[in-house]
Amino acid sequence: MQSSEITLPADRYFGPDARQKEIARELYAQVQDLPLICPHGHVDPRMFADPNYSFGSPADLLIIPDHYVFRMLYSQGIALEQLGVPRVDGGATERDHRKIWQTFADNFYLFRGTPTGVWLAYELCVVFGITRQLTHETAQTIYDEIAAKLATPEFRPRALYERFNIEVLATTDAATDPLEAHRALRASDWRARIIPTFRPDGVVNLDAPNWRENLDALSRVSKISITNLQSFIAALENRRAYFKQLGATATDHAALTPYTNELSAHAADAIFQRALRGQASADDARAFTGFMLLEMARMSIEDGLVMQLHPGSLRNHNDSLFQRFGSDKGGDIPTATEYTRNLRPLLNRYGNDPRLTLILFTLDETTYARELAPLAGHYPAVKLGPPWWFHDSLNGMARFFDQVMETAGIYNTVGFNDDTRAFPSIPARHDVWRRASVNWLAGLVARGILSLREAEEMACALAYDLAKRAYRL
Amino acid sequence: MQSSEITLPADRYFGPDARQKEIARELYAQVQDLPLICPHGHVDPRMFADPNYSFGSPADLLIIPDHYVFRMLYSQGIALEQLGVPRVDGGATERDHRKIWQTFADNFYLFRGTPTGVWLAYELCVVFGITRQLTHETAQTIYDEIAAKLATPEFRPRALYERFNIEVLATTDAATDPLEAHRALRASDWRARIIPTFRPDGVVNLDAPNWRENLDALSRVSKISITNLQSFIAALENRRAYFKQLGATATDHAALTPYTNELSAHAADAIFQRALRGQASADDARAFTGFMLLEMARMSIEDGLVMQLHPGSLRNHNDSLFQRFGSDKGGDIPTATEYTRNLRPLLNRYGNDPRLTLILFTLDETTYARELAPLAGHYPAVKLGPPWWFHDSLNGMARFFDQVMETAGIYNTVGFNDDTRAFPSIPARHDVWRRASVNWLAGLVARGILSLREAEEMACALAYDLAKRAYRL
Amino acid sequence: MQSSEITLPADRYFGPDARQKEIARELYAQVQDLPLICPHGHVDPRMFADPNYSFGSPADLLIIPDHYVFRMLYSQGIALEQLGVPRVDGGATERDHRKIWQTFADNFYLFRGTPTGVWLAYELCVVFGITRQLTHETAQTIYDEIAAKLATPEFRPRALYERFNIEVLATTDAATDPLEAHRALRASDWRARIIPTFRPDGVVNLDAPNWRENLDALSRVSKISITNLQSFIAALENRRAYFKQLGATATDHAALTPYTNELSAHAADAIFQRALRGQASADDARAFTGFMLLEMARMSIEDGLVMQLHPGSLRNHNDSLFQRFGSDKGGDIPTATEYTRNLRPLLNRYGNDPRLTLILFTLDETTYARELAPLAGHYPAVKLGPPWWFHDSLNGMARFFDQVMETAGIYNTVGFNDDTRAFPSIPARHDVWRRASVNWLAGLVARGILSLREAEEMACALAYDLAKRAYRL
Repeated sequence: MQSSEITLPADRYFGPDARQKEIARELYAQVQDLPLICPHGHVDPRMFADPNYSFGSPADLLIIPDHYVFRMLYSQGIALEQLGVPRVDGGATERDHRKIWQTFADNFYLFRGTPTGVWLAYELCVVFGITRQLTHETAQTIYDEIAAKLATPEFRPRALYERFNIEVLATTDAATDPLEAHRALRASDWRARIIPTFRPDGVVNLDAPNWRENLDALSRVSKISITNLQSFIAALENRRAYFKQLGATATDHAALTPYTNELSAHAADAIFQRALRGQASADDARAFTGFMLLEMARMSIEDGLVMQLHPGSLRNHNDSLFQRFGSDKGGDIPTATEYTRNLRPLLNRYGNDPRLTLILFTLDETTYARELAPLAGHYPAVKLGPPWWFHDSLNGMARFFDQVMETAGIYNTVGFNDDTRAFPSIPARHDVWRRASVNWLAGLVARGILSLREAEEMACALAYDLAKRAYRL
Repeated sequence: MQSSEITLPADRYFGPDARQKEIARELYAQVQDLPLICPHGHVDPRMFADPNYSFGSPADLLIIPDHYVFRMLYSQGIALEQLGVPRVDGGATERDHRKIWQTFADNFYLFRGTPTGVWLAYELCVVFGITRQLTHETAQTIYDEIAAKLATPEFRPRALYERFNIEVLATTDAATDPLEAHRALRASDWRARIIPTFRPDGVVNLDAPNWRENLDALSRVSKISITNLQSFIAALENRRAYFKQLGATATDHAALTPYTNELSAHAADAIFQRALRGQASADDARAFTGFMLLEMARMSIEDGLVMQLHPGSLRNHNDSLFQRFGSDKGGDIPTATEYTRNLRPLLNRYGNDPRLTLILFTLDETTYARELAPLAGHYPAVKLGPPWWFHDSLNGMARFFDQVMETAGIYNTVGFNDDTRAFPSIPARHDVWRRASVNWLAGLVARGILSLREAEEMACALAYDLAKRAYRL
Repeated sequence: MQSSEITLPADRYFGPDARQKEIARELYAQVQDLPLICPHGHVDPRMFADPNYSFGSPADLLIIPDHYVFRMLYSQGIALEQLGVPRVDGGATERDHRKIWQTFADNFYLFRGTPTGVWLAYELCVVFGITRQLTHETAQTIYDEIAAKLATPEFRPRALYERFNIEVLATTDAATDPLEAHRALRASDWRARIIPTFRPDGVVNLDAPNWRENLDALSRVSKISITNLQSFIAALENRRAYFKQLGATATDHAALTPYTNELSAHAADAIFQRALRGQASADDARAFTGFMLLEMARMSIEDGLVMQLHPGSLRNHNDSLFQRFGSDKGGDIPTATEYTRNLRPLLNRYGNDPRLTLILFTLDETTYARELAPLAGHYPAVKLGPPWWFHDSLNGMARFFDQVMETAGIYNTVGFNDDTRAFPSIPARHDVWRRASVNWLAGLVARGILSLREAEEMACALAYDLAKRAYRL
């Protein structure tokens, strides 16, 4: 019965008009086989450092670690314990992975029309060669099929990395991370380009959980005793150099808002001293993070690391879930975000310097046309990252193209980054981006706004060139 | 002359692409005859309690009580007095309904491309069988045609209820309402399901007009002397039980913002005491409403009534119009609304409890993708209501589908509710929703994101099942 | 080689669907030759006052004065000095216009898919008859072609004004402007309708740069010694009368927010006295501007000048660029803007008066459906201006039609105004608007929401009638 087969139509995601679809198909043919540039993501580098790393069971791979998947199941009343998500207190959760898989299959209809549904369809069909629809009835057979494949050498991370045609993959790593997996990878004879990204939130945001422990760790790894602002900054510069040595080309910064502000070294040190004594207030934390973003921009100008800013997520909105399961469990909710005023101090100081590349992301799409595109279309330092998180989807991309490109132009954007911790979803995500972007370009050709030749160049730029150039890869 | 005829094309509202339109037509065929579920609206139950109730003149039915209609005429400089809208002071307004109708017809072009225009076209054509365009010339003849029909038994409310194929119709009723019409309906031998909805804003919002009078009325109907928080809550619980007994399955709450907050019983009682003494401040009112929303969620968990929240309308924006004509006269203007932080106290307390269903509405579409869909796609208690008020339109629905569904999935939404006081517009509104939703689904099928079978199930869910299930009907 | 030719397809900008495109073509045929109504813009009237005015070189015409063009080049690291943009301090900038043109041509790809790219394509192709793509190789030949044309009488401003089929062109002029070019134009025998617009921001906004000098200039031109609120208002009324005498039908007001507030004459005068003494605070400035907007509405009711409000631009965001090059250099960035509460005092006082026409603009599209359309669909005084600045684009117009028209109806909007200082771009901008609007209407016809006859009337209204009527031309 045909309807029970998973099929991925060759023209999927392209708009319905026949002429536009034909152009989209032509453009897609030119980008579909380009290598994948993955300049920002959260894949664990240890899976590549160990050549024999195994993904475990189908539930280990596709359900238990993926908050995109289990948040949707949870929203319909399925407890995270039922899905085998580990508890902070080590309490009991479901251990029978076949049972977890069955729950997932029984509720697979929840993902209809969602990006997670689109990615899972690709993973099952293209990555694992599953040809039947995942349903209550087929659940266990499909489990068997995937489990069998996962047991083969072709489904080790390194093999998939090569099959996925990844050219470069950046991970995200705390400033205090010793980067052992990265060192091991460079020491190995496997010739993949897997690089770290410097993320100092844990020490820069004074209100970060465990800030003091993080600071001590920073002292240890940098071998610099941190007693004041000056030594703190020296330690950060030391770590940036270390990350760079291991291939890093970028840093990443998360904050609830993109607030930036000038502060004298004296005032900043006073806050830092209060923080060391455990006496920093919420205002102190805000002012200090705002100041440190300027410092980070200065360092980027000096050491050439591209600076990424990911603001606007109110993390761990759901207290009791956070207490039971920890962070990154689907309970992060976006908030309205202001860039025009917040970034002005940083941009006034460094925004005219072409040596700086500041890549802005947002969870608040109202800022696309109102703030971000005008900023990127003016300041030499500013570039815009692709649709992020909840907006990393077909409609999210269409809105991004619609609302950003007229004012910023595509050359002030940085192509795609998959931003995922789910390694097997990487080709699916790039496939969505490449199809969404050629579909957008095809619409412009069909409406006489671009020539086909221009669209071809832009398709390659969006699929490959822009990311490579912006991230200095 | 063809252009002067009102025709409702069979494929109306479906996107222009031929293939998508064909799929939409297939899907529509499966939902067009499903009964109407009307779980939230403002129809006056008295029109059903009296089997011989008459709608009056065409102006009585279609113009004088409908603020969607007269706000547009007013915006073009036509005084409400000219349209027969009653004045608070009983002052003179137009009494010649033929003249009111003529003014309406002369300005009917103003509704081109608006949802009101779409509904009126349906009402005239399908409900009343009018086949000519309403113009200056045809106004009086069409008035005669409608008046003649309104005089027949087929156009009494009960007959239309049956003709419209309504399965259940919920009204909205103050907590203090004795629900006499509902009692009469249950006592009658007419077998329709018309149920009340518990709306306690008039007593819960300390700054509601006539709060003290409302509170006294609550004491009377509940037979509980309200002297403190405890007796106030007891009276509300008493009324909820009464509403439930008469068929209610839901409550409804309006507030300028969705602010919620924890308050000790002691602190809440102190505010309540100040309110009883007429000394509550604006901050008191805000804190108390925020606290009572938590209380209402608790009661919903206990008694099973579904909780609806309709925030964000700045009521009676136009002072002089409000003084002359009262509320609900087209002068309510939306404001930006924040959910992520405002709802956090309520959701932290009750959002993980699957016994609670909290249906959120908004007049601020920027929250669809940014706040509401992420909340609904995580918290078991949260569901999203359909596009509300100004957004209950073809484009409003398209934006809702576009911005909500990828993150929330359709199963965290609750289908449609017509939310109208204009009874004869009910089938028109459901027709727009059903067509808009199958058109959206057809687009997903055409782009290879859904199979036809999946789209069929989803079309039925959106047209019928989701509302029935979410409202526990 | 075809791909190197600039071609403007006859069906450009119309949606891809064949049926919709056919309807769009039919509608476009009815509006394409209508005269251009240009009721709001920034063209310098002196270019018309002098019959022999020459535009200078191609770079003088198309690059050096156009911040839409050079902001994009600047965003990619090209210094404004390289583009010949004059420095405030008179410092050196590029003087070789062929070199500037070459830089522009080399980077012309940056404008792909942008409205500036669309306008430039039209200007090169239709206004100047250039048939080759502007590239590195063709740059100098195209420079020659344009320069040759600019030297002919057919490319003087008056000749182009006639060729463009402009019916009326409004400029924007400070309240203190003696309007000499306008006087000269009226005294000449050239029969064009070029009229001033009264823009008093420089004296009304107490924090305007050079406020005191502006005030002194106002005293001089009005011959009223300004010593208090009363004489200030008298001077403004005097200037309004003068502008009106020279043909003005409108005023224009810019402010960071649309804040309005009632103030007693006594309180307003107290602020004004502080300002005269150089002691006005930021709060004073805000309150005074908010008060003066009410005063301006009152004057508009009295003298019949249409009132325009353009809020929301944070001017001169880039300090160092502003210091080097002055204002209007691409560094103005939009901010979130609130209308519902801010405009309430003004609308409560004057919004119900049909003698007032208040045209609202926005850079914050989130207010289209949420605030502006509901306000315009209710208050007799309120009308909505077309998509402004960053939103004056194909997508910006599509979003405007999508988000405004259902609630406001087209008859509460005012058609198009090109709002440009780039005179040769005027026909290109109207062409985009006319095509975007017929394309939108064609979609409504194709979906059975409008009849073709209705769409024809609406197309003419949007292209011509609405602007003429709203601006009382």
